[in-house]
Amino acid sequence: MLLGIDIGGTKLALAIGDDDGHIVARRRRPMAPSGDPMRDVAALAADAHRLLRDAGVRPANIACVGISAPGPVDGDTGQVLHPPNLPGWQDVPLARLVGEVLRRPAFLENDANAAALAEWRFGAGRGCEDMVYLTMSTGVGGGLILGGGLYRGRSGQAGEIGHMPIVWEGAPCACGMRGCLEAYVGGAAWTRHLRESAPESSRAVQLAGSAAQIQPEHVVRAAGEGDAFALAEFERYNRHLAHGIAAIAFALAPQRVVLGTIPTAAGATLCFEPVRRLVAERVWPRIAAALEIVPSALGEDGPYQAALCAALEGVAARRA
Amino acid sequence: MLLGIDIGGTKLALAIGDDDGHIVARRRRPMAPSGDPMRDVAALAADAHRLLRDAGVRPANIACVGISAPGPVDGDTGQVLHPPNLPGWQDVPLARLVGEVLRRPAFLENDANAAALAEWRFGAGRGCEDMVYLTMSTGVGGGLILGGGLYRGRSGQAGEIGHMPIVWEGAPCACGMRGCLEAYVGGAAWTRHLRESAPESSRAVQLAGSAAQIQPEHVVRAAGEGDAFALAEFERYNRHLAHGIAAIAFALAPQRVVLGTIPTAAGATLCFEPVRRLVAERVWPRIAAALEIVPSALGEDGPYQAALCAALEGVAARRA
Repeated sequence: MLLGIDIGGTKLALAIGDDDGHIVARRRRPMAPSGDPMRDVAALAADAHRLLRDAGVRPANIACVGISAPGPVDGDTGQVLHPPNLPGWQDVPLARLVGEVLRRPAFLENDANAAALAEWRFGAGRGCEDMVYLTMSTGVGGGLILGGGLYRGRSGQAGEIGHMPIVWEGAPCACGMRGCLEAYVGGAAWTRHLRESAPESSRAVQLAGSAAQIQPEHVVRAAGEGDAFALAEFERYNRHLAHGIAAIAFALAPQRVVLGTIPTAAGATLCFEPVRRLVAERVWPRIAAALEIVPSALGEDGPYQAALCAALEGVAARRA
Repeated sequence: MLLGIDIGGTKLALAIGDDDGHIVARRRRPMAPSGDPMRDVAALAADAHRLLRDAGVRPANIACVGISAPGPVDGDTGQVLHPPNLPGWQDVPLARLVGEVLRRPAFLENDANAAALAEWRFGAGRGCEDMVYLTMSTGVGGGLILGGGLYRGRSGQAGEIGHMPIVWEGAPCACGMRGCLEAYVGGAAWTRHLRESAPESSRAVQLAGSAAQIQPEHVVRAAGEGDAFALAEFERYNRHLAHGIAAIAFALAPQRVVLGTIPTAAGATLCFEPVRRLVAERVWPRIAAALEIVPSALGEDGPYQAALCAALEGVAARRA
């Protein structure tokens, strides 16, 4: 059996899985980091014990505890480095701490890599040798499945597709750089841009109540109703997203690119079809023809499945 | 023993190697494609037989013939597709033809992948798990060593780093797209740009005789003498090269990027030092700190070693 723990900035999701990573039992609760990582670890261990007890699983039967946590993560040391949305967590040796508290082997994976593994094993990436996962939530997370396995790069730092420079001296990014893909298609950056540029007359502003309250979902709805501002915003959004995907397509020639969050919420007409068209125009035919651009498929199961996939990686790492 | 055949647009290089791919004997001659691939294959087979005879190696002792040829190449079928500098070669099943003529197993690799393998096994990439090779000759070729082996992607199309879009609606590229890295740092594109923009007063024009005769080596020399135009051109060149390397660094977090041709000719002061500085400014410290940007190391041995590495891949593919 496996145990998976997904640590988000605002919620904790735990799952018990069978040896293949299928979800057997789950539990989630809101999480507000206390500022003291030790206290947070003790609290999540209590949740884990409760879930195991309720499911009638003995802790000794857990082969590995998989932890999915916001990056940056040092894959070599099992440390969470300094995730912006986990205040007080600085260079926390999370795999070791969780392993000690639960007295089981524990393995840490950054959440984007874990989500990529989950889509590959259980979701929209099933059957692929080479798959790129991109999720456009607050930031842009990425994970690479290359040659039938997760590609981590040096110290587990690979897959930061959200920070590939799209425009050399472009828009400032939350990471401190300029012109990153995330600065154009990340949820936080796009929301800021929308609030600054939405005209009062836009349907998106009406739906949100005021320009200052616009969220991407208002633009999705307004575009669906034919609002000119919202449609123009999606054109801009899709162009930048296609730029990033085109760069990845030339570098990696993957079989599938799986997109989560904003594109999945926007759907085929607003996002996937225009992005596929733009990529087909900007990428050589034989690379574009072999490339599928699809929405993520796991939905609510995502975080549980991601954490269980981290556990599967831990089991494989112990065997190697 | 191994036999390697490197097919260039203007020259043919053949080598006999030991079972580890070390060069034992070599031969090269100019090559002018006849327009008839069958005739060209018969001619190169005659060269191969002569080399084997001179070296006293029986053809039956060759475990595999490795062929390095200009892309695009279809790795699944062993076909050369439509290389711009091999006129008349259209969808040529080169691995099969060479295999039949020489009566040995033959394996085809595109020249950039073969060169990446050669730098990794014998040159500037030795000891790396994850290495990116980029050569700035007429075009920009790329090859990816990921996880201790060549990463080919779907149908062997990966590694086309030269065509990653650097500017979405940028300079036209020879490939038909716009804004590719190659459109800024490829030898042919840069030469065209230099000829169009060099002022008569520039030292580069003096060295070349006229603006219309400028080659990158004139700009290298002029920059070395402090010519303002040449120095500004290198600034532009290095910025675009750093953009491409930064994108690759965020996506792949490799341990080493190996640069061939123009950067290697330009050297440390004009190219490597400024590129390293720009990449360090534009890439997160923990990725940049782990990344070495180094010149290719094989020099004249490159094509022979590349073809022998294709042979090694062929041996491994037959074992798998």
